[in-house]
Amino acid sequence: MEESSRIAGPARLRADARRNQERILVAARAVFAEHGIDTPMATVARRAGVGVATLYRRFPTRDALVRAAFAQQMETCGRALTEALADPDPWRGFQRLVETVCELQREERGFPAAFVAAFPDSTVEHARVREQVERDFTILVRRAQAAGALRADFHPSDLAVALLSHCGLVTALPHDRSASRRLVAYLLQSFRAEAAHGALPPPSALSLSSLPLAADSSRRQQPFRA
Amino acid sequence: MEESSRIAGPARLRADARRNQERILVAARAVFAEHGIDTPMATVARRAGVGVATLYRRFPTRDALVRAAFAQQMETCGRALTEALADPDPWRGFQRLVETVCELQREERGFPAAFVAAFPDSTVEHARVREQVERDFTILVRRAQAAGALRADFHPSDLAVALLSHCGLVTALPHDRSASRRLVAYLLQSFRAEAAHGALPPPSALSLSSLPLAADSSRRQQPFRA
Repeated sequence: MEESSRIAGPARLRADARRNQERILVAARAVFAEHGIDTPMATVARRAGVGVATLYRRFPTRDALVRAAFAQQMETCGRALTEALADPDPWRGFQRLVETVCELQREERGFPAAFVAAFPDSTVEHARVREQVERDFTILVRRAQAAGALRADFHPSDLAVALLSHCGLVTALPHDRSASRRLVAYLLQSFRAEAAHGALPPPSALSLSSLPLAADSSRRQQPFRA
Repeated sequence: MEESSRIAGPARLRADARRNQERILVAARAVFAEHGIDTPMATVARRAGVGVATLYRRFPTRDALVRAAFAQQMETCGRALTEALADPDPWRGFQRLVETVCELQREERGFPAAFVAAFPDSTVEHARVREQVERDFTILVRRAQAAGALRADFHPSDLAVALLSHCGLVTALPHDRSASRRLVAYLLQSFRAEAAHGALPPPSALSLSSLPLAADSSRRQQPFRA
């Protein structure tokens, strides 16, 4: 392929690289869904029909591969937050955000594992995006609380608690959509101001920015290293 | 050991067998907590310092080993249900049951994985115990609903949904007790009659008897096969 690329010029090279990249991402999603995101990189390469060296040239770390494989899902999560902030009814915005992210977790079999992954190789740019998510979600929470819809003792980290629990449920029961919908409905009702009943235990120190609520834009803009 | 046992008679044999068994169960809990319940049996044998053959003689299947390792935890779950039924305040009984099982899931690192395991080798006796659990829990639910404390649209399968979600959370965040306590508080508040707000989606077909809410008494009464 390197040979034919050199003959056909840079346009052909880019087309080949893009095709390879797409094959790798499709294979990664399938393998991650079946065996989890800890599956050896060699398994992904084999499924994609590319060499391990090619895989590593495109995705030097597993984190980079996991993030690229689910970039679209992570982007949908990020967009849901933007839309929630734009909704004139902050509770409706909040509710739709939770439902959208949970629907993705339910419908995309490999995504829950990617969702709970820690991504230790985060870039500075990525950290900035995540801080922005944290700030935006806190604004949404304040607005929904000011409107009297969201309970006053809701803490932004509770979203992370809810999403990680839901991830756990859909991982344990990947085919039980009713269980997932039921949990989401209960959690949303428990977050309503009317549901408040006595003091809650103190919130977790969990940070929302540890969750892929924002697509990693730095990663997506990165040119192919073919 | 077989040699020394024969010399010292059946009492010594039983003592040796019991010591081996205890060593295996301690090793199994440690290995399952660290690497999950899918860890190769050979790893458990190595950690326990016994041969693989000895391990298989005691526990012919992984299910049998997992169940024996967490028999005490499963028994605590079963006892919590009995106590809940005995409580004159059915809502308090219900609440304590959920809190007790979730506390076990939170404090015993290997237990959540055992809790969600399917145990395909269930015995007839075991199935009977589980049906009893299902019946007992349904009685508790009806009583708490009749008292006006538990919402009328709560379905017994919702307990399984709640416990599996909590399992997922403590597996993702094994050291974050606040997150676990916060989820349990939210779920319990969402189950209260006052929290009901509009129709819930239809309940899951999930059966409570797929969860180890009852100790497998058939297993515990089984004599050593030394």
